[in-house]
Amino acid sequence: MGEKDQKQGVYVTTGEEFVRDTRYISTRITRDGADGYPVEANRYRLVAARACPWANRTLVVRRLLGLEDAISLGLCGPTHDADSWTFDLDPGGVDPVLGIPRLKDAYNKRIPDYPKGITVPAIVDTRDGAVVTNDYAQITLDFSTEWTDFHRDGAPDLYPAELRDQIDEINATVFSEVNNGVYRCGFAGSQAAYDKAYDRLFTQLDVLEERLSTQRYLVGTTITEADVRLFTTLARFDPVYHGHFKCNRSLLAQMPALWAYARDLFQTPGFGDTVDFTQIKQHYYIVHRDINPTGIVPKGPDLRGWLTAHHREQLGGRPFGDGTPPPPPRPDEVVPTTNGVPTHA
Amino acid sequence: MGEKDQKQGVYVTTGEEFVRDTRYISTRITRDGADGYPVEANRYRLVAARACPWANRTLVVRRLLGLEDAISLGLCGPTHDADSWTFDLDPGGVDPVLGIPRLKDAYNKRIPDYPKGITVPAIVDTRDGAVVTNDYAQITLDFSTEWTDFHRDGAPDLYPAELRDQIDEINATVFSEVNNGVYRCGFAGSQAAYDKAYDRLFTQLDVLEERLSTQRYLVGTTITEADVRLFTTLARFDPVYHGHFKCNRSLLAQMPALWAYARDLFQTPGFGDTVDFTQIKQHYYIVHRDINPTGIVPKGPDLRGWLTAHHREQLGGRPFGDGTPPPPPRPDEVVPTTNGVPTHA
Repeated sequence: MGEKDQKQGVYVTTGEEFVRDTRYISTRITRDGADGYPVEANRYRLVAARACPWANRTLVVRRLLGLEDAISLGLCGPTHDADSWTFDLDPGGVDPVLGIPRLKDAYNKRIPDYPKGITVPAIVDTRDGAVVTNDYAQITLDFSTEWTDFHRDGAPDLYPAELRDQIDEINATVFSEVNNGVYRCGFAGSQAAYDKAYDRLFTQLDVLEERLSTQRYLVGTTITEADVRLFTTLARFDPVYHGHFKCNRSLLAQMPALWAYARDLFQTPGFGDTVDFTQIKQHYYIVHRDINPTGIVPKGPDLRGWLTAHHREQLGGRPFGDGTPPPPPRPDEVVPTTNGVPTHA
Repeated sequence: MGEKDQKQGVYVTTGEEFVRDTRYISTRITRDGADGYPVEANRYRLVAARACPWANRTLVVRRLLGLEDAISLGLCGPTHDADSWTFDLDPGGVDPVLGIPRLKDAYNKRIPDYPKGITVPAIVDTRDGAVVTNDYAQITLDFSTEWTDFHRDGAPDLYPAELRDQIDEINATVFSEVNNGVYRCGFAGSQAAYDKAYDRLFTQLDVLEERLSTQRYLVGTTITEADVRLFTTLARFDPVYHGHFKCNRSLLAQMPALWAYARDLFQTPGFGDTVDFTQIKQHYYIVHRDINPTGIVPKGPDLRGWLTAHHREQLGGRPFGDGTPPPPPRPDEVVPTTNGVPTHA
């Protein structure tokens, strides 16, 4: 996502609690094409950024389900200007499929003078180069439930019908208290708003710590959508949220069950191999100038601990249920070793 | 200290490495009164701030040596304006002995229009209200060597003649690489300057970690001036330097020997009872607006670990040598419980 009032590069509003604008372009790509966009291979391009936790979800789910051949991937660099995420990592600074330098161009194709923040993830229709949707919460669910014809053999069911109520429930809590909770700390516009946000965040992390001390995954005995959503926030906790967002009661590395859970997922194919710690740190520390005016990116923390044994197998569970792990990433989608951590464990 | 270019509230100079101005008012108070200021009870007032690591040294040494009755104490609040440390904690905002609201007034009495930063610690002559010295490095050595007539019974020798070479040597390293090293990270004006500062800092911390894994104190078998100087930086490491100054390879709590060493000292009378974590956090996060524009002070970290067992007795050593621990602080100098940590262990 591009967070808040991206146009002015302002993330903190003095005196105010941070409130995320959750109104997205909610068009859906479905099997029946009810919104005018039917599921179809080689038609849609997922535009993401490895830095962004909301986009990171789509990278994980696409990998787990094996949708790489059906849905192509465009990647924006870790930093963006006040106006838009950009394709600055691509040769010539232009996305090779969409032919545009800025993601904003695809938003404006859909809605001229698009008035809100230019966020990732977004799915773009390659037929006209216009954004179909940027509704990240729906995108991953639709990957699981609408794109089934294109899932790889052995793809896990990340959103099993019989567990959806439980998944939806924990997702709602994790979103408000954790995924968005860290931003509520970091973008707090007053000491009182921050103090309240900090208490909410760590209260919920303590609840999750307790829950995950006796069960391997958040819901059921296999990886689900709920784990994907928690994972992308946990991966950013020590490198960014602890210092930059002042979420500093404790490091993730000091919460034993959550830390082992996060490492377990990180070391599971499809999770850690989508994480680029270097880009993650660059994004937050360089983009949020009103929190970090110097733009200096910390060298720490030492992240090699992500590859240490987690012993979560002892809790049972089968990561992929009756399915199988995904094969390694496509060569053109391999994340290089970052911060001394080979992403491919 | 007030650090750098206090007058403009600017701590980071873009493109530059942070260089501390170490030219102080170097007049000394000595037994022979060579500089015009002889050692004398009830004449001098130490002005400090609990927030400041350089001033904290004087508070520790004054306690250890029992100089409370000979040298009175004025305390500035944790934050200061762009102009001066102030006596904002005192009734009416005026130091009850000196009768001034701003420490700057005492500097100007000594040197009209004093052109440099107004720093703590400073020793003021109560006869004329003028600053005698703000040379923090010399102040504590003179407490040990010039004020001996006023030491309490059982005062330790913090600067024993036979160990001075060793103490001076480690002090020089600890100053440049650690005490000032954390500031070099935090006030770095470029990514390159920061990266270099970070490497220097953690290289030296690793050396100290190694050294302290087999010996209880830095020099010899008892507490010395060298321990005082390292301690006041370590006490600020996790609450401030790790996040605010980006010294985040690891927490102090993740460096086992240093962390146990710091807890050992914290729990020794004269050390922890001078530390006010609340004021420490307020100082850095509120004063350095060019690093933390919102002025929001983190609630973390959880500091209760400072009171846990350190097991350093197993390394031998006698904290006070042939001396004894100091009695509890004077009632008017007790630091209240801060951040859930009773300072009086």
